Amino acid sequence: MTNSESLVNHFKAHHHRATALAHPNIAFIKYWGNSHEALRLPANPSLSMNLAGLQTVTTVTFSDDFAADDLIINEQRLIGPRLERVTAVLDLIRMQAGLHMPARVESVNSFPAGAGIASSASAFAALALAGAAAAGLDLDEADLSRLARRGSGSASRSVPAGFCQWLPGSDESSVATSIAPPEHWDLRDVIVIVSQVHKAVGSSGGHRLASTSSLQSARLAGAEARLAACRKALLARDLAAMGPVVEEDAIMMHAVMMTSHPPLYYLEPATMAIIHAVMQWRDEGIPVYFTIDAGPNVHLMCEAAHGEDLRTRAGQLPGVQQIIVSGPGGPARLI
Amino acid sequence: MTNSESLVNHFKAHHHRATALAHPNIAFIKYWGNSHEALRLPANPSLSMNLAGLQTVTTVTFSDDFAADDLIINEQRLIGPRLERVTAVLDLIRMQAGLHMPARVESVNSFPAGAGIASSASAFAALALAGAAAAGLDLDEADLSRLARRGSGSASRSVPAGFCQWLPGSDESSVATSIAPPEHWDLRDVIVIVSQVHKAVGSSGGHRLASTSSLQSARLAGAEARLAACRKALLARDLAAMGPVVEEDAIMMHAVMMTSHPPLYYLEPATMAIIHAVMQWRDEGIPVYFTIDAGPNVHLMCEAAHGEDLRTRAGQLPGVQQIIVSGPGGPARLI
Repeated sequence: MTNSESLVNHFKAHHHRATALAHPNIAFIKYWGNSHEALRLPANPSLSMNLAGLQTVTTVTFSDDFAADDLIINEQRLIGPRLERVTAVLDLIRMQAGLHMPARVESVNSFPAGAGIASSASAFAALALAGAAAAGLDLDEADLSRLARRGSGSASRSVPAGFCQWLPGSDESSVATSIAPPEHWDLRDVIVIVSQVHKAVGSSGGHRLASTSSLQSARLAGAEARLAACRKALLARDLAAMGPVVEEDAIMMHAVMMTSHPPLYYLEPATMAIIHAVMQWRDEGIPVYFTIDAGPNVHLMCEAAHGEDLRTRAGQLPGVQQIIVSGPGGPARLI
Repeated sequence: MTNSESLVNHFKAHHHRATALAHPNIAFIKYWGNSHEALRLPANPSLSMNLAGLQTVTTVTFSDDFAADDLIINEQRLIGPRLERVTAVLDLIRMQAGLHMPARVESVNSFPAGAGIASSASAFAALALAGAAAAGLDLDEADLSRLARRGSGSASRSVPAGFCQWLPGSDESSVATSIAPPEHWDLRDVIVIVSQVHKAVGSSGGHRLASTSSLQSARLAGAEARLAACRKALLARDLAAMGPVVEEDAIMMHAVMMTSHPPLYYLEPATMAIIHAVMQWRDEGIPVYFTIDAGPNVHLMCEAAHGEDLRTRAGQLPGVQQIIVSGPGGPARLI
């Protein structure tokens, strides 16, 4: 064996690498609050659409050559709570694979983080898939969705394709499944970005506050009915039936946020300006509805035919910094 | 009897006139939704402060010389639903007094109507008092509060002095009473007016929608506890204890509004800008809290020492059209 062959064998034995891509998703029925914090079992079922065009690409490399886990997002090395959250998912993978190597996680987002486009969803979906593959685990979609969930609840919904439903339940059963492929309905999410500032209170902290709002139990009590109505309308491609449910569900989440202790105010002046514009556009006959995640940005839901018109209209509103138009995206996948 | 004496006697016998003044009020614990629409029995107890300096002055004249009831607000003759609502209160007065004359109601507001300062509260409190006096009825405060309530729920709270509590109950018992006189606490309401546009959906219509929100029952369930906490803090002059309750209660009302069917969005971009400014001012150490009625304007609650500073600060925010600073006001009274 030459020195060079020895190096190659050493690399094969001690390096395990895989790269995966995942899309963020926009929830039509929101996830807010856990019934079990550590396992991230959600307090209510949720439903979302993966966002094509936006993506996180993550490479996981396990190697004995590393001293400790390393997290590099958009070429920036991160330590502290964000690294710990990634390590927690890597630990689940290592435990299952009987692997004891540290990992380097290199992740690149194609979209701004922290302001209403759930970067943690695509990030942990890609991490779960790349990590499991790098560790040599043979996991099915449900396994991967469950693993992604442990990193970020909404990441469970970025594992399957298209339109995904995530049900509460036990650690075993709480996974997302696709209820329709991306081709089912050419919906558009016109993402109106009014702020790219990182949230003062991240989603994980917010989920823990949900139960401190006296409106949360009313929100939870109706979640299943809203999910059923939304799913039915989605499967029937009936935007006029789906839109009002989606708007109400989003406002309910923000009502819980604003009445939690302490309260969380994600809605900005520009957010309200867009909401009022949506009402006016609907009065003018344009079938468009809004939803808002845990941030100030507004997602306009419409069918493909109205996407560009709404991009133009939204671009004329005050406070709008950027607009991204996305359609239904595929599943997390290895690349 | 001369012709002239005959005219005077005719006037005395057939004209009955009185003038009353009442202040609007700002609710710290909101009234939203009725348990009985026609009687305007509220679904929950509420608590407010009369606003000194702002006032409605109303003159009621009963006369056989009139063909029908006439309503003149700010020198403008009004017909339709607003006149009918006034006639309904006049009918209660006429029935009780055994009077059968039409009335002329002339009313002048010292503040903009229809955008978050409850002009209907001061208007119906003044109407009840002037109307009862003109009709020769000898009513006590509770009687007048009950009568005002039939015109506009929150008007019941503009009859007694200072800080008033209005309890639900039967037609007989549902009246407002003063829990502290104006001198009890030199609070300020810094009213930040961002719009003087008349509301698309008035409060009466909104009250009827309250029960269509799935958040209303949660709001009602906690109203008594919020009222008790607010009243206790108010009596102790403890703004730090009172403020968060008042803010939460206001947001709960708007959460109900935005999730009713159809939804009501009173919050404007400028409203959110002021809410965020209040949070920031508090971070800077200024003891100020907000509340919002059924409109986009924001009421800043503070003690007298901070009133002018907050007037200056609020005046620098975008979208602010006018600022009115008011303190605790007295009862409705004859003038």
